[in-house]
Amino acid sequence: MSVTNRPRRQQKGSTATNRHGLSAMGLRSGEPPISWLMDQALSHPKIISLAAGFTDNASLPISETRTILKNLLANSATARSALQYGNTMGDTVLRQATIKRLRAADKEAPGPRFNSAHADAIYDPIRLLITHGSQQFLYMLMEALCDPGDIVLVEDPTYFVFLGMAQSHGLHCRGIRMTKDGIDVEHLGSVLGELQRSGSLPRVKLLYLVSYNQNPTGITTTLERKAAALNSLRRFERKAGHTIYLLEDAAYRDLRFAGSDVASALTVAGAERRVIYTSTYSKPFATGIRVGYGLLPPQLAKIVTRIKGNHDFGTAHLLQCILAEALNSGRFDRHLKKLRKRYAAKADAMGCALDRHCAGLLDWGQPQGGLYFWARIHGRGRSGAKSRLFQSALANDVLYVPGALCYADDSTRPKPDNELRLSFGSATEDDISEGIARLARAIRAGNH
Amino acid sequence: MSVTNRPRRQQKGSTATNRHGLSAMGLRSGEPPISWLMDQALSHPKIISLAAGFTDNASLPISETRTILKNLLANSATARSALQYGNTMGDTVLRQATIKRLRAADKEAPGPRFNSAHADAIYDPIRLLITHGSQQFLYMLMEALCDPGDIVLVEDPTYFVFLGMAQSHGLHCRGIRMTKDGIDVEHLGSVLGELQRSGSLPRVKLLYLVSYNQNPTGITTTLERKAAALNSLRRFERKAGHTIYLLEDAAYRDLRFAGSDVASALTVAGAERRVIYTSTYSKPFATGIRVGYGLLPPQLAKIVTRIKGNHDFGTAHLLQCILAEALNSGRFDRHLKKLRKRYAAKADAMGCALDRHCAGLLDWGQPQGGLYFWARIHGRGRSGAKSRLFQSALANDVLYVPGALCYADDSTRPKPDNELRLSFGSATEDDISEGIARLARAIRAGNH
Repeated sequence: MSVTNRPRRQQKGSTATNRHGLSAMGLRSGEPPISWLMDQALSHPKIISLAAGFTDNASLPISETRTILKNLLANSATARSALQYGNTMGDTVLRQATIKRLRAADKEAPGPRFNSAHADAIYDPIRLLITHGSQQFLYMLMEALCDPGDIVLVEDPTYFVFLGMAQSHGLHCRGIRMTKDGIDVEHLGSVLGELQRSGSLPRVKLLYLVSYNQNPTGITTTLERKAAALNSLRRFERKAGHTIYLLEDAAYRDLRFAGSDVASALTVAGAERRVIYTSTYSKPFATGIRVGYGLLPPQLAKIVTRIKGNHDFGTAHLLQCILAEALNSGRFDRHLKKLRKRYAAKADAMGCALDRHCAGLLDWGQPQGGLYFWARIHGRGRSGAKSRLFQSALANDVLYVPGALCYADDSTRPKPDNELRLSFGSATEDDISEGIARLARAIRAGNH
Repeated sequence: MSVTNRPRRQQKGSTATNRHGLSAMGLRSGEPPISWLMDQALSHPKIISLAAGFTDNASLPISETRTILKNLLANSATARSALQYGNTMGDTVLRQATIKRLRAADKEAPGPRFNSAHADAIYDPIRLLITHGSQQFLYMLMEALCDPGDIVLVEDPTYFVFLGMAQSHGLHCRGIRMTKDGIDVEHLGSVLGELQRSGSLPRVKLLYLVSYNQNPTGITTTLERKAAALNSLRRFERKAGHTIYLLEDAAYRDLRFAGSDVASALTVAGAERRVIYTSTYSKPFATGIRVGYGLLPPQLAKIVTRIKGNHDFGTAHLLQCILAEALNSGRFDRHLKKLRKRYAAKADAMGCALDRHCAGLLDWGQPQGGLYFWARIHGRGRSGAKSRLFQSALANDVLYVPGALCYADDSTRPKPDNELRLSFGSATEDDISEGIARLARAIRAGNH
């Protein structure tokens, strides 16, 4: 990576051509690749999109939401509270329910004996902030920690919206290799060592892990890897001059439909001051009800809450009240059970279609949760937006996310360009099968 | 103002003491004064708060929201849409309804003949972005336009959360004097001239006007003032090297209960490229349903939408669907009619109580809308958080917002410290009367 060579867009600055008076961020914030993908979908009305990160439409909790809202609005005290401002950190009932649920999940997950003194310090509502989706939490955390030119370490590949957000903030991302158990801790150590030698360590603020059913690869990071990664960061914090945080994004933790849960990095010794955990209720319940949260060391929770106050004073109270009631009534978990079955079936449909149509063309792993398959093209095929495959896929009315979008701009390694992210989130099972069949045709056509 | 002398907090930077690895923003973002005020309220359980910006609890649209949600969730197509992601700019139906309503309001407001070619260019959904309250819009606009060290021109006094947001972004605010018709345009011109002479003009990005029933003074800016202000900005834009925007915050436009509406600055010639208009549905409907919007020149709308994408992909779709249905069913406007009567009665209660208890102690104007009275202490009394009056008010269990909080840190003028913002938004009529009686006792006690 070129810490010294700034990305192209960043050099524009406030020059004479900046007649709209934009800020450095305004100048940097390019059209996100996903908008371009969505435009492709719009201009091909018969397209089957295996690109969108939308969730399953058929299983949205309509009757659950109806009942919750009916109860909430039948009582004038709860109705008034839901329709009035809340506080900046978030609804107390929702924060308590969230803490309880997270603690229980970490306790029940296989792993070493749960230390309850450690747990009392960690699972505390004063550390918890409710946000308009976990995306908003990631944004505000980045604001609290990162200045332009700072460095964040990311999985290679990682969640592409995080990369766009980092680019918009003028940050440098450094990719850490992935294995089937999560990031390659040796590679993490060697990157940190290299950054130390080049004097860039003080600029390293965090390691971002999408640790459950990762977007895009579907990989779940083992607890051992998380512990080893945290240890690695700790070894460098004195030389960095500050904490290097482990930011664990558990957005897909609830969407596990096979395998076992894994305890979060919050359970690791030393997590109190170093681990930030974020997740969302949007994907496992309803994406139209944008509620996420982040758990932070207390000193950071204060600062991020102030930033949240400047953003919007606090998450829309009506949404928070819906989620609090969904959690406390058991409706959330009952819905989740159905949803997991639904996604298991859709993942199965995609896996079967891949077996039938793409054997010998692609390699892929069967995910145990989340919304995505990650596939690699056999041979020398490329998958990027300008590749023959992508154009051939468009011509065959099927859309995927080119894998290269999920890799940071990190000049220390070539950016892989032979992978595809295939989503089974929003398409129906029939469309999934048909979409994969079209993809196979597109690959064959692209090969000629 | 000291463009060269940076505010105290800003000098901390990334020093050796920054062991939490905070960004410049993280280091700058201080506890907002309003949190401290809210803590005072919490530690005085019998306090009557005339400080909070909360809206009237008794008139929240419970039955309206119930009906809207019942209809929305009864139909599986509308229900699914409401519970699924929307797009980043906002719901198409809500954006169209918003444009239509805004255009009609500007057309009906007294003023020069409405030019419909100009209007077709201005009132266009492609310029409109829906946000989680207008606060979020202000935040993202600031990100798109302002770098640390940039200058924003604000009314003197102005909305204090805007000042906090600017401070958190490392901006300098310059206060423009107010008259009963809005900002003093001569003063605006002389400040711009002075900034030009000192070479700071390229750093001036916008003029921020809370133009309807202003928070805190209650002043509504005339259309003539808005046109003159825009002309003044235009005169300097060539020398600035870029557009200097007029940012019109119409958050209290709908909450007018006396007087006539005023056309927005969007109706002024030259507005297409220069005027940014923001308002909210939260205050006139339900603050628990956080939906606001901003209308921008197209080149900026694109950039702010990208930033919105990084924040949260788009405003929670359920909230947008509620508002779209409220607007299109006429429920929003019927509710607003009732709400205006309610606030008129509460403003009347506060005015009567001030007449009865505070004549000879305070001067104040009777607002024609909004949620606030702005009062000045007779004689040499001070109102700040450390003043005898403030302490005496706390001892008498009444809370107000010290006027000084509403003034920018602008060293070119002394910061007035003898005013109070008194809110009639959330307190009941009885509490308003009792609160003002307590305030009078506090002033008398503080004078001894």
